[in-house]
Amino acid sequence: MGPAVDLNADLGERAPGIAPGHDSAVLRSVTTAHIACGFHAGDPATMFETVLAAAELRVAVGAHPSFPDRAGFGRRAMDLDVEQIRLDVVYQVSALAGIARAAGTTVVSVKPHGALYNQMVTDAACATAVARAVGDVSADLWLVAPAGSVAAAVARNEGLAVAEEAFCDRAYRADGTLLPRDLAGAVLSDPDAVARRAVGIVRDRGVSAADGTWINMAPSTLCIHGDTPGAAEIAAAVRAALEGSGIAVLPFVAP
Amino acid sequence: MGPAVDLNADLGERAPGIAPGHDSAVLRSVTTAHIACGFHAGDPATMFETVLAAAELRVAVGAHPSFPDRAGFGRRAMDLDVEQIRLDVVYQVSALAGIARAAGTTVVSVKPHGALYNQMVTDAACATAVARAVGDVSADLWLVAPAGSVAAAVARNEGLAVAEEAFCDRAYRADGTLLPRDLAGAVLSDPDAVARRAVGIVRDRGVSAADGTWINMAPSTLCIHGDTPGAAEIAAAVRAALEGSGIAVLPFVAP
Amino acid sequence: MGPAVDLNADLGERAPGIAPGHDSAVLRSVTTAHIACGFHAGDPATMFETVLAAAELRVAVGAHPSFPDRAGFGRRAMDLDVEQIRLDVVYQVSALAGIARAAGTTVVSVKPHGALYNQMVTDAACATAVARAVGDVSADLWLVAPAGSVAAAVARNEGLAVAEEAFCDRAYRADGTLLPRDLAGAVLSDPDAVARRAVGIVRDRGVSAADGTWINMAPSTLCIHGDTPGAAEIAAAVRAALEGSGIAVLPFVAP
Amino acid sequence: MGPAVDLNADLGERAPGIAPGHDSAVLRSVTTAHIACGFHAGDPATMFETVLAAAELRVAVGAHPSFPDRAGFGRRAMDLDVEQIRLDVVYQVSALAGIARAAGTTVVSVKPHGALYNQMVTDAACATAVARAVGDVSADLWLVAPAGSVAAAVARNEGLAVAEEAFCDRAYRADGTLLPRDLAGAVLSDPDAVARRAVGIVRDRGVSAADGTWINMAPSTLCIHGDTPGAAEIAAAVRAALEGSGIAVLPFVAP
Repeated sequence: MGPAVDLNADLGERAPGIAPGHDSAVLRSVTTAHIACGFHAGDPATMFETVLAAAELRVAVGAHPSFPDRAGFGRRAMDLDVEQIRLDVVYQVSALAGIARAAGTTVVSVKPHGALYNQMVTDAACATAVARAVGDVSADLWLVAPAGSVAAAVARNEGLAVAEEAFCDRAYRADGTLLPRDLAGAVLSDPDAVARRAVGIVRDRGVSAADGTWINMAPSTLCIHGDTPGAAEIAAAVRAALEGSGIAVLPFVAP
Repeated sequence: MGPAVDLNADLGERAPGIAPGHDSAVLRSVTTAHIACGFHAGDPATMFETVLAAAELRVAVGAHPSFPDRAGFGRRAMDLDVEQIRLDVVYQVSALAGIARAAGTTVVSVKPHGALYNQMVTDAACATAVARAVGDVSADLWLVAPAGSVAAAVARNEGLAVAEEAFCDRAYRADGTLLPRDLAGAVLSDPDAVARRAVGIVRDRGVSAADGTWINMAPSTLCIHGDTPGAAEIAAAVRAALEGSGIAVLPFVAP
Repeated sequence: MGPAVDLNADLGERAPGIAPGHDSAVLRSVTTAHIACGFHAGDPATMFETVLAAAELRVAVGAHPSFPDRAGFGRRAMDLDVEQIRLDVVYQVSALAGIARAAGTTVVSVKPHGALYNQMVTDAACATAVARAVGDVSADLWLVAPAGSVAAAVARNEGLAVAEEAFCDRAYRADGTLLPRDLAGAVLSDPDAVARRAVGIVRDRGVSAADGTWINMAPSTLCIHGDTPGAAEIAAAVRAALEGSGIAVLPFVAP
Repeated sequence: MGPAVDLNADLGERAPGIAPGHDSAVLRSVTTAHIACGFHAGDPATMFETVLAAAELRVAVGAHPSFPDRAGFGRRAMDLDVEQIRLDVVYQVSALAGIARAAGTTVVSVKPHGALYNQMVTDAACATAVARAVGDVSADLWLVAPAGSVAAAVARNEGLAVAEEAFCDRAYRADGTLLPRDLAGAVLSDPDAVARRAVGIVRDRGVSAADGTWINMAPSTLCIHGDTPGAAEIAAAVRAALEGSGIAVLPFVAP
């Protein structure tokens, strides 16, 4: 069997009155969809609709919990104690799991959003709280965490299955963290460049940092940002390039 | 075996920064607690804390879902389509069920709050949506609905176990609905009067309406309003009077 | 001096994390922008940014208050008493007026959003509450209301300046109300067809209803929907057609 | 003329469905009320009702803006950039000012709430953002800040009138900050002890820290916590003791 990788996107994040935009187009190229659970975006009806759309295309469904910060789209750091973090994640994942059950399907993974994801990368106490929340909901859920991060290690230590994630549209620093968005060269927007990088990461099991340092990684999933204007084109280009290079595009857990 | 009835109160509804107030005092007298799920009041940490407090006192835990209306405390009618109602209830009950599991206990019943409860009494489509939502989450959940209401009949028809509810601190109209709160005599606040009425409803299997008409009812549960200043005193008086009259006070489902 | 009309669009309604989309493109063609005030969409930072963008292009700034319903994007009817409606509008318009002052400009008009706008059309008590709210904030504010509606009459009666509004991308019924969106032919999406209709409404001082009945109207402003995919193209086509027909496109109040 | 001091309390913070509790009792003893503006608690109807109750008792009205964190009652630190802080404060103070105008009165001061107040004490950039927001709304507004804090100095530097605040129910550390609530002796709850401390602070122009160090301060206002069970008794005791010691209890700005 040859190499394989999952493509995941964050969906269900639009405002309720705004046209659906790229969600349905992106769904045609990815294999796992992490769906906003109401704390930074999303509401029960949008969650249900997005779950149904994913299920129809045999895309696996994951939860995308966040800090309680709609005004800031979950991107602002918040000083929550770890117990609050745990309970906020339990609440959101359980709610989406119920919605998915009502849609005749199942949630298979959890990927924290925005500032919560960032805090988990470096803060072991936060990562432990998230991992325990996931385990509280179901021992069968996978956690998505950055490849090689403290969060991935902590979650495995807590007994969770972990899908390590790499970013094919972002430049890395030598320490394996992402170059901040506001620096030149931090974000790749050319579909071909992103697709080449995706193939390279999977085939070479690593990536060159912005300063040329080689970083080893063996990600199970590549992140496709779902809320950028060219998201659907990028997703399609990445998928075509992977498959054209003999890399199967498959979910890390079958839906 | 003699007569028995459940006492239920709506809890976890205080603002997060406000002192807990009557919740813990009320918990000492009731046998089922319906806990706010975040749409009219409540948040994951308050939900967890209230579930734990209930479990410690062997009080059964129920969900108290609402329209999404924090500003109006869920008391304002909203024109949601029935599919939104169903999904809002699925979301809230699933979220509380997850929190309860994390606290080592289980949700056994669902009692809609405020305007949603009122709409369900007379609107069969709304009652059907609520009943299906409850069944979507678990076939083992009970629905709490007014004694003799359309909602109770509809829910039984959908295959749910139903706990019919009576109000011992409110005056009834001849048609079995409550006298509106702003009319004279609509609300009883004297603990002894409420307690006498509670005993009468269970013992005589009915109550006299404000105009003297007799209304038959055989409720499984009596509602104790948890957010009024004298709630704890009323709850204690009702419980003492019931037990003093040989009526067992027991949850309709063991926690 | 020849005929003139204002073009208005509702802006600042996107989710905070979503790309700005059509707002800036639409702003190049309209003369008044009604900005979401936080109850159905928007937050202080988005409000400020949208006010600044409007001011830079000399577009007049209006407030776009709503029912408190983010989950439903303000499109769901809610049973608020008229005092709550009045205070919700005072709160939102005052908040935007403060943000506009901080941006060095001024709010000149108020156009209610979604279900609140619809209720105001036929419910005189609601229209009175909105009109009084507007007057409470400032006697200089204009209210935007449907051409020929009860709301327009009630507001004038309360002493407000009223800008009557027509919709050039929607079909009308003989009674002057809009054909519901879900009926065939209700929404025009071809930019040329919308532009022709806009010119016709202003030049002929009226429009043909779907059944052929002629409806007289003399609107001060035409609504351009800002949240549809082709909004920018439609806005540009309408403006070009109006100006090409000798109709000046000017705000009803200079910013 | 003898010594004088203001007594201020934070009000309008209860959940909408919860009984008003201590607000009206506390209002009888204080001279300034800072009213929640909707971001941590409060809604337009509660704000209006609280403003009216204050005005009736000739209590001055202030705004009590917060981080956007209802779930955490505004008590959790949030990583907002200073421009967001400024605009969030402009939004809230402007909204309350509009509500106050609709009630026939005026907002005279601003006192940030919870985590925002705490951040302002030590973070000059945050204090500057708050001070500019207050000045953006009106040059006549006072800012309430801890006696001797960086925030008080920064705000004066920005040209604002500042009311320095002391806490008569809390123990101080030698550096003038408060002993954290969870340490023994941090909170005084005996009305007589609080009242004695209030008189001492005003008469002696300072207070002894927990370690015995003397701290000089000359506060214009003393804070009465409005949301504790004994708030009304404490407020009455403090007022009686001050007046019994020849200290006038007067607002720092007449309402």
